[in-house]
Amino acid sequence: MTVPAPSFDGDHDSLVTALARAGRAAQTQLAQLGSAQRKAALCAAAKALRAQESAILEANARDMAAGAERGLSGAMLDRLRLDPGRLAGIADAVAAVAELPDPVGQEIDRTERPNGLVLSRVRVPIGLIGIIYESRPNVTADAAALGLASGNAVLLRGGSEAVHSNRAIHAAMVAGLVEAGVPAAAVQLVPNQDRAVVGAMLTAAGLIDMIVPRGGKSLVARVQADARVPVLAHLDGINHTYVHAAADPAKAQAIAVNAKLRRTGVCGAMETLLIDALYPESASLVAALLDAGCELRGDARACALDPRIVPASDADWDTEYLEAILSVAVVDGLDAALAHIAAHGSHHTDAIVTEDTVVAERFLAEVDSAIVMHNASSQFADGGEFGLGAEIGIATGRLHARGPVALEGLTTYKWLVRGTGQVRP
Amino acid sequence: MTVPAPSFDGDHDSLVTALARAGRAAQTQLAQLGSAQRKAALCAAAKALRAQESAILEANARDMAAGAERGLSGAMLDRLRLDPGRLAGIADAVAAVAELPDPVGQEIDRTERPNGLVLSRVRVPIGLIGIIYESRPNVTADAAALGLASGNAVLLRGGSEAVHSNRAIHAAMVAGLVEAGVPAAAVQLVPNQDRAVVGAMLTAAGLIDMIVPRGGKSLVARVQADARVPVLAHLDGINHTYVHAAADPAKAQAIAVNAKLRRTGVCGAMETLLIDALYPESASLVAALLDAGCELRGDARACALDPRIVPASDADWDTEYLEAILSVAVVDGLDAALAHIAAHGSHHTDAIVTEDTVVAERFLAEVDSAIVMHNASSQFADGGEFGLGAEIGIATGRLHARGPVALEGLTTYKWLVRGTGQVRP
Repeated sequence: MTVPAPSFDGDHDSLVTALARAGRAAQTQLAQLGSAQRKAALCAAAKALRAQESAILEANARDMAAGAERGLSGAMLDRLRLDPGRLAGIADAVAAVAELPDPVGQEIDRTERPNGLVLSRVRVPIGLIGIIYESRPNVTADAAALGLASGNAVLLRGGSEAVHSNRAIHAAMVAGLVEAGVPAAAVQLVPNQDRAVVGAMLTAAGLIDMIVPRGGKSLVARVQADARVPVLAHLDGINHTYVHAAADPAKAQAIAVNAKLRRTGVCGAMETLLIDALYPESASLVAALLDAGCELRGDARACALDPRIVPASDADWDTEYLEAILSVAVVDGLDAALAHIAAHGSHHTDAIVTEDTVVAERFLAEVDSAIVMHNASSQFADGGEFGLGAEIGIATGRLHARGPVALEGLTTYKWLVRGTGQVRP
Repeated sequence: MTVPAPSFDGDHDSLVTALARAGRAAQTQLAQLGSAQRKAALCAAAKALRAQESAILEANARDMAAGAERGLSGAMLDRLRLDPGRLAGIADAVAAVAELPDPVGQEIDRTERPNGLVLSRVRVPIGLIGIIYESRPNVTADAAALGLASGNAVLLRGGSEAVHSNRAIHAAMVAGLVEAGVPAAAVQLVPNQDRAVVGAMLTAAGLIDMIVPRGGKSLVARVQADARVPVLAHLDGINHTYVHAAADPAKAQAIAVNAKLRRTGVCGAMETLLIDALYPESASLVAALLDAGCELRGDARACALDPRIVPASDADWDTEYLEAILSVAVVDGLDAALAHIAAHGSHHTDAIVTEDTVVAERFLAEVDSAIVMHNASSQFADGGEFGLGAEIGIATGRLHARGPVALEGLTTYKWLVRGTGQVRP
């Protein structure tokens, strides 16, 4: 079953208003459902995704054909492509979200005032969350599942390359949800691909409570520039690993190679290696990276470590490569490393490798990033690895939620005050 | 001592950039100071406010004279006015903030992953907070104290009516802070009153981390409309008290009179009274409010309760009076009360009076407001009454912090990951 689209006369603000009102009304109903019913609905949605495999793959084939015709790059086509294995993975992820602990109703703290008033803060859903994303059709299912599991309604606006895939995934999930008693409008997909709809979503303050952009830098930058609605954004991950003088060489080498090369395209990948001038094994450290196929761009002292290292330009220190390229600088001690990170970092994930715990604790305290690590690979920057079960993204802003964001980050709180007739003097 | 103003050639963006860079650098230094040193600095600032009483009162007298000449209203002049008692109160409030528990460095949670990584979230300052306010000079001291106590730098932009008072208060506080080792730029006052500076602050994304507007509705609305920087905003408090059929009449009357009339100009004041059609003492309830001097505007059934009640217009249900006027509706049961609040409330503070705890718990669960109360006056909506020691404001947005915001709401968190050489498979 598909959800009937609201009538649309070309006025994007009216369209978004109609969708948002329907979503808010559905969210109010959703908030009354218990945790068990929301979990059951997610399981039904996962089941429907599996049951409608052929319809979804057929829709995806149409998107793939259109994409090939439009000359999408191989990487883009790969992001767009579904097959039985990938679709099963999407359904499994939805079912896995259903198993996560429900944050809604959780008591954050409770105090009793001298006048007998009992105050508590409990987690509540944020409301209606707008998700704006690009060509990956799995986001349709992921975002819907995370939103619903935290009691929110979602308004999804996917990329036009994936329009048929998204509609098929959405229709399957809604069929499952409705069967389980969740109102269809709890998960809505914007019914047309006009770019002006995105603008209308971004300015729908009071109707949409939060926007989560999922995609490349230019999408996120546009959303941040134009939004009147609060944005949970993920920008660059210009992540540093600082190998301190007292680093264990085996750990340093394993961490550096893993942090850069395990997967180069993820936001937690290391982009700059800072080597302490007093670290004794710097030549073998850079050799290990070079031998593993990584291009190294160094400052003068780094270039002196190995003839294969090419000189870095000024821009290299501020670049998120997302490929097998790494900038390398030799620094004089912790303070120089901290200064480099403060000047060039993007406050995502930065790490130190050292056996000196005093130095490590200073690094943990003083680096102002969402995630700061000691003796670990920055590639652990991930909601799953953090035990959150999933993630809607890694927030690089400072407010509301920071770092990997899963269900808790999709809630807010309210204060409950229980009295016995108190009036204020 | 006064802080030298950055050189200014009329380019407001450059001015704000220079101020923000200085503030951010000072915040980095401030973050390295321990809690004890920040507390000592606040005590020194309080002492300096007391020591410079005559200079501050003299500056205030200049503002008062200019305000009278410009024909400011009596209410505005009263907000502007300082006297020895009020100034002592301001100094005392700064000293009291120094006594609050320091949230910085507090561990929110800690988990160990199966691979041995130890994850913790610790509270850290937000960074540089911009405060935009109107004619009350006490905000200069309050906001600076709350900002500093939570490790943040602040950039203050007060109203032009209070320019001399603000400068004198700022100069006194900075003198105290500097004496105690806090960099002067941790608390900066925008050195000119050009309104374009506000616009430059609102768009200084990446330089200012959060804006807190303190003032009337039009100021807050302008800030929300124009800001690119996240805003911690306080909008209307259209607060409801619902007197349920099973309310204790003595409690209902005491709470209603207190919620409306204790102080009518505060954001926690009740603006609409909902009386259940089955509540047996409705006539005496409205009589108590009328006898206490409150104007009542009712729907048809409320008007039938007392001839002194005048008919309400549609606009009354959406009005924050902030004076001795109250709208009153008779509603048929809890669901009708919830529907009225959902339609007309501003998600600030809503209360129920009832002896039926099942009904009360449904009200607490289903009303989507920052503060929901049972058997208590909505005038308790206040950081001090909540045991927070102070407040920078009551947030009516949904994200980051909600309800009364004090030190904790002025912090964010970072994730610390402590490993022993783990790499990601």
